Amino acid sequence: MLNVAVVGYGYWGPNLARNFGHAEGAELVEIADPSAERLAQAGVLFPHARVSKNPLVVFNNPAIDAVVIATPAGTHFDLVKAALSHGKHVFVEKPLALTVEQGEQLVTLARERERTLMVDHTYEYHPAIRLIEQMIADGELGRILHASSVRLNLGIIRKDVNVLWNLAPHDVSIILRLFGEEPCRIDASGGVFLQDGIEDVVSVNLEFPSGRIAQVYVSWLSPRKTRELTVVGEKKMVVFDETLPEARVKVYDKGVDRQAAYESYGEYLTLRHGDIYCPQVPSKEPLRMAVEDFVDAVRNKRAPRSDGEAALKVLRVLAGAQASLDRRRG
Amino acid sequence: MLNVAVVGYGYWGPNLARNFGHAEGAELVEIADPSAERLAQAGVLFPHARVSKNPLVVFNNPAIDAVVIATPAGTHFDLVKAALSHGKHVFVEKPLALTVEQGEQLVTLARERERTLMVDHTYEYHPAIRLIEQMIADGELGRILHASSVRLNLGIIRKDVNVLWNLAPHDVSIILRLFGEEPCRIDASGGVFLQDGIEDVVSVNLEFPSGRIAQVYVSWLSPRKTRELTVVGEKKMVVFDETLPEARVKVYDKGVDRQAAYESYGEYLTLRHGDIYCPQVPSKEPLRMAVEDFVDAVRNKRAPRSDGEAALKVLRVLAGAQASLDRRRG
Amino acid sequence: MLNVAVVGYGYWGPNLARNFGHAEGAELVEIADPSAERLAQAGVLFPHARVSKNPLVVFNNPAIDAVVIATPAGTHFDLVKAALSHGKHVFVEKPLALTVEQGEQLVTLARERERTLMVDHTYEYHPAIRLIEQMIADGELGRILHASSVRLNLGIIRKDVNVLWNLAPHDVSIILRLFGEEPCRIDASGGVFLQDGIEDVVSVNLEFPSGRIAQVYVSWLSPRKTRELTVVGEKKMVVFDETLPEARVKVYDKGVDRQAAYESYGEYLTLRHGDIYCPQVPSKEPLRMAVEDFVDAVRNKRAPRSDGEAALKVLRVLAGAQASLDRRRG
Amino acid sequence: MLNVAVVGYGYWGPNLARNFGHAEGAELVEIADPSAERLAQAGVLFPHARVSKNPLVVFNNPAIDAVVIATPAGTHFDLVKAALSHGKHVFVEKPLALTVEQGEQLVTLARERERTLMVDHTYEYHPAIRLIEQMIADGELGRILHASSVRLNLGIIRKDVNVLWNLAPHDVSIILRLFGEEPCRIDASGGVFLQDGIEDVVSVNLEFPSGRIAQVYVSWLSPRKTRELTVVGEKKMVVFDETLPEARVKVYDKGVDRQAAYESYGEYLTLRHGDIYCPQVPSKEPLRMAVEDFVDAVRNKRAPRSDGEAALKVLRVLAGAQASLDRRRG
Repeated sequence: MLNVAVVGYGYWGPNLARNFGHAEGAELVEIADPSAERLAQAGVLFPHARVSKNPLVVFNNPAIDAVVIATPAGTHFDLVKAALSHGKHVFVEKPLALTVEQGEQLVTLARERERTLMVDHTYEYHPAIRLIEQMIADGELGRILHASSVRLNLGIIRKDVNVLWNLAPHDVSIILRLFGEEPCRIDASGGVFLQDGIEDVVSVNLEFPSGRIAQVYVSWLSPRKTRELTVVGEKKMVVFDETLPEARVKVYDKGVDRQAAYESYGEYLTLRHGDIYCPQVPSKEPLRMAVEDFVDAVRNKRAPRSDGEAALKVLRVLAGAQASLDRRRG
Repeated sequence: MLNVAVVGYGYWGPNLARNFGHAEGAELVEIADPSAERLAQAGVLFPHARVSKNPLVVFNNPAIDAVVIATPAGTHFDLVKAALSHGKHVFVEKPLALTVEQGEQLVTLARERERTLMVDHTYEYHPAIRLIEQMIADGELGRILHASSVRLNLGIIRKDVNVLWNLAPHDVSIILRLFGEEPCRIDASGGVFLQDGIEDVVSVNLEFPSGRIAQVYVSWLSPRKTRELTVVGEKKMVVFDETLPEARVKVYDKGVDRQAAYESYGEYLTLRHGDIYCPQVPSKEPLRMAVEDFVDAVRNKRAPRSDGEAALKVLRVLAGAQASLDRRRG
Repeated sequence: MLNVAVVGYGYWGPNLARNFGHAEGAELVEIADPSAERLAQAGVLFPHARVSKNPLVVFNNPAIDAVVIATPAGTHFDLVKAALSHGKHVFVEKPLALTVEQGEQLVTLARERERTLMVDHTYEYHPAIRLIEQMIADGELGRILHASSVRLNLGIIRKDVNVLWNLAPHDVSIILRLFGEEPCRIDASGGVFLQDGIEDVVSVNLEFPSGRIAQVYVSWLSPRKTRELTVVGEKKMVVFDETLPEARVKVYDKGVDRQAAYESYGEYLTLRHGDIYCPQVPSKEPLRMAVEDFVDAVRNKRAPRSDGEAALKVLRVLAGAQASLDRRRG
Repeated sequence: MLNVAVVGYGYWGPNLARNFGHAEGAELVEIADPSAERLAQAGVLFPHARVSKNPLVVFNNPAIDAVVIATPAGTHFDLVKAALSHGKHVFVEKPLALTVEQGEQLVTLARERERTLMVDHTYEYHPAIRLIEQMIADGELGRILHASSVRLNLGIIRKDVNVLWNLAPHDVSIILRLFGEEPCRIDASGGVFLQDGIEDVVSVNLEFPSGRIAQVYVSWLSPRKTRELTVVGEKKMVVFDETLPEARVKVYDKGVDRQAAYESYGEYLTLRHGDIYCPQVPSKEPLRMAVEDFVDAVRNKRAPRSDGEAALKVLRVLAGAQASLDRRRG
């Protein structure tokens, strides 16, 4: 049985506590948060877990095997480092850290201590993303050329991080997973409208060694909730629109075919408009699957899907995009 | 009566011929095209117009007041220059030219010769864009912060220009018109998938002196026809989706309000989710209105809405984006 | 303080218990259900409420002021009658009863005993329906001509009642409320496909003394969840589509105008295609508002919005439609 | 070569003339219409066809093999009868006639004279309907249980016929074709709002000997253009929504499955929510295919798909629905 403590019981912590509380093979034994009020709420829902104000109590408790960190992004580095240093396995909210150097330190530390380090990139466990990943692996889409991921909403506006660090980790982790490569060029443009120095709207262009390109567009300041991923393959194209009541994943048998007989470029291209197929996506909660992967990875001493290495790749892209934003503001 | 000749009777020329043929105050007197077959088709529909293979016949004809140029983009500079040099007023397909230097030469030449030079940026005459422009002028949207313009399709794939020069002139002309300023920073990323050296997918990030940002995303290689413009104002937000059967323009009474009483940033922001209003957009053909503006501008010696100066601004953005693409490919 | 007991803790009972448990001025003191397992679940969530297997315990308890009945439709008559006879105020799940005679008995009994009898026609409390009702009252839609209410889904398939009695009470209560009159002609057609003698698909045509007509179409056997109400007024038309993520209520400034100058019919009719307006609908839970209305009505000795009289009108329409179905099956 | 004359050159006549003008194996030789203005327009587009004001000229012309009748519905009977009596093959706009007796006379007359009689039920030639028909024939949908066909719009308001006779012929012809049987029970309800004695909104319930039911709902007085057909089969369900830009036909692998092991009704029903498949529908103009079928049928002396017999079945349903409307108005 894996004894688990949750550090941070604010916006996302309760969801993590609930999932770890129900996970096969894990037991939620402690919850830490600086707010007495939030600890009281936690105490009602998880009467068997201890509560404490200080995360050090958790780290120093030898009975705890794994720590789940759901605190503001700016505290991740220190808390993850402390937890790993105390020999705990760590499941941390995205992003892993706020700089690549910090992220590298944490990954190295986890490797040295032989601890599992996992970052909660929930979409890596989303059944729709796994389905698209499988279609790519099966060659159904052909060579992947391009992806676009758009995540817009009015609010929730964060004060500690900009919209890039708040929303784009999802899109970047999806694209890295589907492309299987890291970008060689990152360019970002952002608008600062509501709070000093905090971007509300960010558009990121990514170019990859293979020639692929991807676009990530995130905003807190948009009239319509939009969560749309488009993946363009040479054979087929996929659109995943999370906001639809049905047919969220659409596979288009569409493309541009080359005809071998022609000699010159361009003229021999013909458009193919075929059927659309909307596979039924299993309705499993991604967070629950992430938690199960973590528990199983710790117990079987294997890397989880969304491990520190994968998270470090996401972090490199976010940091690259932030550097591009900073140069512009210069 | 304005005597008009159409040079180039390929994809768009017939639409221009039809509109000039019906325009009040204009008479279509000649059509030039190198293809005998296309001239034959033109002859059937416009029995009163002469047809000729050589545009020089048109330019040298003193009875012709204005020339409409609908030839491939690469020929625009030479043909517009020749037409203006022969003292003709010119209505030319977008883009005005392929370099800023060429565009400047043409604008200067038109000014020197006191001829009207107009570029067919059709969306400048689209009733929906004019409606949004009016709302901005009336202050209904508040200060404009951000715009995103997305234009995707499967095909039509061009061989002479990339998707930036083919589709983005629409989006750029719209954004420049609505923002009333030129960008100070242009960054573009493009994918080359179907034809050597010709981008099929391009994403452009624009930053403006006022702090506004805009995004233009165009593609020939997308499963779904998308034509969506979002304009984010401080008070209200507008989405114009041309593909919808109804409610193409939606005005959202949504935003983030500041409350004066608070002292610190962030905490005092509250989301406002109000009504949505979908004004009925007049169903006038934009091209017809563009043609009428040209004829009236020539006759009344005034600048048309989409004149050479406006087109030059569009050209500067396109050339800036192309330079960004070229640097990357380097 | 109003002491409330919930009788029936199956599908809907927990929602009612939760709402009465939180209602201002009410206290949930007892829950009755024949299932020991369900009572155990209730005990966890409502530790302060007594649980019992027999509703008679509830009815005989003089400390209980009001009884909420959430049992199968076939038991409503007996339970409501017993509760009223014991001097309790009653809040009962739709439908009030299964025959008009039974319904009339209950309404009469409640009047004699001076008890509040309310039926849970939730849509009567839906903010969208109240908004449409208000627009009608304000004359904004003009004279109301026609309504269509469609409620389709795949499942949930009931064994005790057909789809008419399961789903159509919603649509009928809405239409009666908006029209303010009862139909003079009821015709229904139904298909029996999954279970012997139980209609899965029913279409009801209603004609009203004023000349209005309405259509109710309900199904358990449809591929797409549909909940769409259309109200056609002489001046404006409204569509309420509950399945949309935004703009659920659309007010169309559309219609057919008569022009006084013309003499003959038909020629003088002109179509008006105006703006569309989507008012923001307050996001209040209808059930909570129904519960608050009940508590307040009991305490202030006034009729609730969805009282026995209103429910009896719904029952008359359902019974009329069932009679039409029965005649056909003959 | 089949010599064809078009009688009636109003709203639909020009479409028919165009299609017969281009049809392989047919030649448009004459156009008749009482309006000199319309004949002048016809003369411009069809310079090789004679024009005449009197249809009798057409009927008496022995060089004419087939007559296309596109006049108001009230004149169909007399004109078709005259054309057949003069030995012409006849292609007539829907409906065939306004009473079943008239329709029967015409079908009998065509049989006696051995002439082809075809009614322009365009949807019988619609590629989407043919695709659905084929899926039914292949057993892909399983046993067909239910259909619903909805056809709504604001306008075009007719003065000569009500909305039942104007729009419902499409829906009825589709349903009869897909079901392969005639209804045993017809009930209709209609609203008369704009013009004396002319229904603007009609809802028809149809019951069939097999137990199937169908619903037809047509209106001239609706805010949204709706053209939606739902076909519910025991294995799969199909929705054909003509107003969508893509995926107009959706095949849902959804249904309710019975499990053999269970003994009692109801409990053994399980819902199946599977994939959605949107076949690419060939983009052929239905009217063109109807015209080709007519020409080929005449030349090869075979019955066309939409022959007099099929049209008579549609007419019986329309007449039955009208009788139901008349009884109500009584």
